[in-house]
Amino acid sequence: MPYVNIKVTKEGVTPAQKAELIKGATDLLVNVLGKNPATTFVVIDEVEMESWGIGGLPAEAYRASLK
Amino acid sequence: MPYVNIKVTKEGVTPAQKAELIKGATDLLVNVLGKNPATTFVVIDEVEMESWGIGGLPAEAYRASLK
Amino acid sequence: MPYVNIKVTKEGVTPAQKAELIKGATDLLVNVLGKNPATTFVVIDEVEMESWGIGGLPAEAYRASLK
Amino acid sequence: MPYVNIKVTKEGVTPAQKAELIKGATDLLVNVLGKNPATTFVVIDEVEMESWGIGGLPAEAYRASLK
Amino acid sequence: MPYVNIKVTKEGVTPAQKAELIKGATDLLVNVLGKNPATTFVVIDEVEMESWGIGGLPAEAYRASLK
Amino acid sequence: MPYVNIKVTKEGVTPAQKAELIKGATDLLVNVLGKNPATTFVVIDEVEMESWGIGGLPAEAYRASLK
Repeated sequence: MPYVNIKVTKEGVTPAQKAELIKGATDLLVNVLGKNPATTFVVIDEVEMESWGIGGLPAEAYRASLK
Repeated sequence: MPYVNIKVTKEGVTPAQKAELIKGATDLLVNVLGKNPATTFVVIDEVEMESWGIGGLPAEAYRASLK
Repeated sequence: MPYVNIKVTKEGVTPAQKAELIKGATDLLVNVLGKNPATTFVVIDEVEMESWGIGGLPAEAYRASLK
Repeated sequence: MPYVNIKVTKEGVTPAQKAELIKGATDLLVNVLGKNPATTFVVIDEVEMESWGIGGLPAEAYRASLK
Repeated sequence: MPYVNIKVTKEGVTPAQKAELIKGATDLLVNVLGKNPATTFVVIDEVEMESWGIGGLPAEAYRASLK
Repeated sequence: MPYVNIKVTKEGVTPAQKAELIKGATDLLVNVLGKNPATTFVVIDEVEMESWGIGGLPAEAYRASLK
């Protein structure tokens, strides 16, 4: 009965892409650990760009700094 | 000083229901472990249906598959 | 299909107390939101006293400061 | 490669304040543990007042009870 | 820069299986959302059986109840 | 009443360093957002090297790959 939480920046992830993430993460747990999909949860959190930091900067400023 | 996080699908949970969840979870920690309610946090996250997966499917598709 | 995470300091919580927390948290979700217990997860994390801070101090030092 | 998650009530945190939190949390990990900022993530979650409980009450009711 | 957290019961997951989970989850984010693996974190938590609840029971008791 | 969770690899973080992280994270919330330290929690999780992935590899293998 695994629980998978996926956090990504909020940049237009579509429902179809979410469905792919859910399918892929569930399959991974089934294939690697033999878990039961019926008790495998996947929760996707989309985080505003201004609320995600890396390198000491908000995501957008960080990306700009790499250019 | 416990911290309780409750994640549910976003399906019209009312402020009154949230207050009940907060009260109930706090009482539980007080009754079972003798914790101090003044330093017991309860955080409720509501997750979009399309972002919650079970059985390898988004929640809505999963429920439909059970019918 | 709710997910509940309970974090407490590691201070000798017994298996019986954990079972009570699991039962109580599940009942809460069933009673308040009509959730299905078969797809309600409760995960309990016990955190070392030295790894839990409050008031800017590790838990033990904080408690001592209140005396 | 640390991961820092900061949860606060949603009460008008500005992008500039978020940038300060990101900078401060990253510097903390660099200074105390010598971590690499390029692989230090900071994720800020803002939680609705009605979804944050303390003292067995939603945050707003709790604050009112202290007055 | 995604962050993936996988929680499973502590039942002898090997380092090789963990490496497979890390590889699989990272590939998933790369393939579905075009994320950069160098800033994709995967954190695996193993939870004691007595600390994981489902159906209102600790995991072991729950499994026994299904037999 | 903020909640801060710091996850780092388990590599000999000392109690004194944990106390510094707790102090620093609390001060940050006090200084940037005017939060009350008495209701600011900091929880530090130390994650086994084999359970932390980056770049599609467990942490140790990833570091070796950079040399």
